[in-house]
Amino acid sequence: MKLVPLGDRVVLKQVEAEETTASGIVLPGQAQEKPQQAEVIAVGPGGIVNGKEVKMEVEVGNTVIYSKYAGTEVKMDGTDYIIVKQEDILAVIK
Amino acid sequence: MKLVPLGDRVVLKQVEAEETTASGIVLPGQAQEKPQQAEVIAVGPGGIVNGKEVKMEVEVGNTVIYSKYAGTEVKMDGTDYIIVKQEDILAVIK
Amino acid sequence: MKLVPLGDRVVLKQVEAEETTASGIVLPGQAQEKPQQAEVIAVGPGGIVNGKEVKMEVEVGNTVIYSKYAGTEVKMDGTDYIIVKQEDILAVIK
Amino acid sequence: MKLVPLGDRVVLKQVEAEETTASGIVLPGQAQEKPQQAEVIAVGPGGIVNGKEVKMEVEVGNTVIYSKYAGTEVKMDGTDYIIVKQEDILAVIK
Amino acid sequence: MKLVPLGDRVVLKQVEAEETTASGIVLPGQAQEKPQQAEVIAVGPGGIVNGKEVKMEVEVGNTVIYSKYAGTEVKMDGTDYIIVKQEDILAVIK
Amino acid sequence: MKLVPLGDRVVLKQVEAEETTASGIVLPGQAQEKPQQAEVIAVGPGGIVNGKEVKMEVEVGNTVIYSKYAGTEVKMDGTDYIIVKQEDILAVIK
Amino acid sequence: MKLVPLGDRVVLKQVEAEETTASGIVLPGQAQEKPQQAEVIAVGPGGIVNGKEVKMEVEVGNTVIYSKYAGTEVKMDGTDYIIVKQEDILAVIK
Repeated sequence: MKLVPLGDRVVLKQVEAEETTASGIVLPGQAQEKPQQAEVIAVGPGGIVNGKEVKMEVEVGNTVIYSKYAGTEVKMDGTDYIIVKQEDILAVIK
Repeated sequence: MKLVPLGDRVVLKQVEAEETTASGIVLPGQAQEKPQQAEVIAVGPGGIVNGKEVKMEVEVGNTVIYSKYAGTEVKMDGTDYIIVKQEDILAVIK
Repeated sequence: MKLVPLGDRVVLKQVEAEETTASGIVLPGQAQEKPQQAEVIAVGPGGIVNGKEVKMEVEVGNTVIYSKYAGTEVKMDGTDYIIVKQEDILAVIK
Repeated sequence: MKLVPLGDRVVLKQVEAEETTASGIVLPGQAQEKPQQAEVIAVGPGGIVNGKEVKMEVEVGNTVIYSKYAGTEVKMDGTDYIIVKQEDILAVIK
Repeated sequence: MKLVPLGDRVVLKQVEAEETTASGIVLPGQAQEKPQQAEVIAVGPGGIVNGKEVKMEVEVGNTVIYSKYAGTEVKMDGTDYIIVKQEDILAVIK
Repeated sequence: MKLVPLGDRVVLKQVEAEETTASGIVLPGQAQEKPQQAEVIAVGPGGIVNGKEVKMEVEVGNTVIYSKYAGTEVKMDGTDYIIVKQEDILAVIK
Repeated sequence: MKLVPLGDRVVLKQVEAEETTASGIVLPGQAQEKPQQAEVIAVGPGGIVNGKEVKMEVEVGNTVIYSKYAGTEVKMDGTDYIIVKQEDILAVIK
């Protein structure tokens, strides 16, 4: 079983925080939106979404910073996923 | 009697949660929107909806994850249905 | 006297609930919008409404499920009508 | 002196309620918008309003049902008028 | 010194209410917007305003009914003016 | 050091109120927006801003009336500036 | 590791306030948005963002005044960054 996102949606899997790593990313909490580091698991086809052309910029395997605020959590086969719109992804970590 | 949705609307029927299955999908509650697993029962024609071209991407028989927040519950012939807009469907499970 | 709706508006007449019928539609109440079963009495011409092209999809005589939330109740010649925009009609029952 | 409405605005004059007439229209109050029966006194030119093409559909002398919510009351020469946008007119009574 | 309005803005000067005149216009107060009678003092050039083409319909010297709600009061050389957008002018009195 | 505004933004410097001048402009306070008299210090390039074409109408050296509501105060080299969008400038004083 | 922003997003690094410098910029607090001085670290590609063409105007190395209100704080390799949309950058300091 796998999740196939529609439109401009992206399926993410949260990266385990390695708090002891000196160069690890620490994402401080914030009142309105909680940024998160995650791996891209599946990417929707893009195209016309809500009347606007959306081109997908992220790829499966990317590590991204996203804004958790608008995402939806789903658990499948014992794994937690988050489904977000691409516009809720702020940056790719390279 | 059957429900024929208008525009970009989709008629869904909630899938019974099989909580004892190891690989079952568990959808944790969330304050603002409750994601749900459902089967697609009927799909509207799409076309121009609120001035925007909408192409229907889901098909009858698909199992989908949807955001219950904007849906409307209808009971017909003893069965519960939910009518949502396609944009409230997050992903198809394949 | 009859009501001739403007633009994308539709005049509806609520269907009497036949609660004893086994296959009757039961529409549970909901906090934000109360879905309703009704008969289409008159249909506006559609065309450009609020800058957007609207094509009327429902016909006089259709039985529809609508979202009562945005409608306006009018009583004429002793009969109650509801005037809604077509986008507040969710599905046709066939 | 007369009121010449701009854009998509329409000048209305409320019809006196004839409560004793059997076939009279009774408009029940509603929390958010109070529908009203009125006669059309003057009609704006339409054209481009707020960036959108508006074609005027009502004519002077029409009896209409309107949504009072967004209207502005004006008294001139001892007569009360209401100025509404055409989109606040729900139906013409014929 | 004079005020030269930008875009679709119009400079108005409130007309003194002549309350003893039989045919005078009386503008009753309203909770959300207070309609007002005023003379047009200066008219902006119109053109593209907020991405939308606006054609100025009022002229210097017109007496207008406007909705005071969105206006800004300015006092210059001892005279009070109100700067409104043209869309806040409801009708011209002729 | 100087401030170079982006897009449709304008850098303003508030004009000292000369309260004793007979013909001085007095700008009464208002609950939602406080109009202000200011000198234009720098003007952004305009162009496509938020998907809309904006043509800059004000020039460096203009004295303008602006709506302070949406502006941002900045102090540089001991001088206070306000950065506003051009749409928050109501009129030029000539 | 580096942050590669998507769309119209810009990665900023806050400039240390040198409070003792006579000509330093002092940014007074404000209830709704706190303007900030920062250095541009990375700039997204721009292009079609939310259906609108966005051309990036800032460059890596620019010192900018931004509105912190909509930004997201990220800490990477012990350094604090802020990710904002270009429209939240008010001016470049030159």
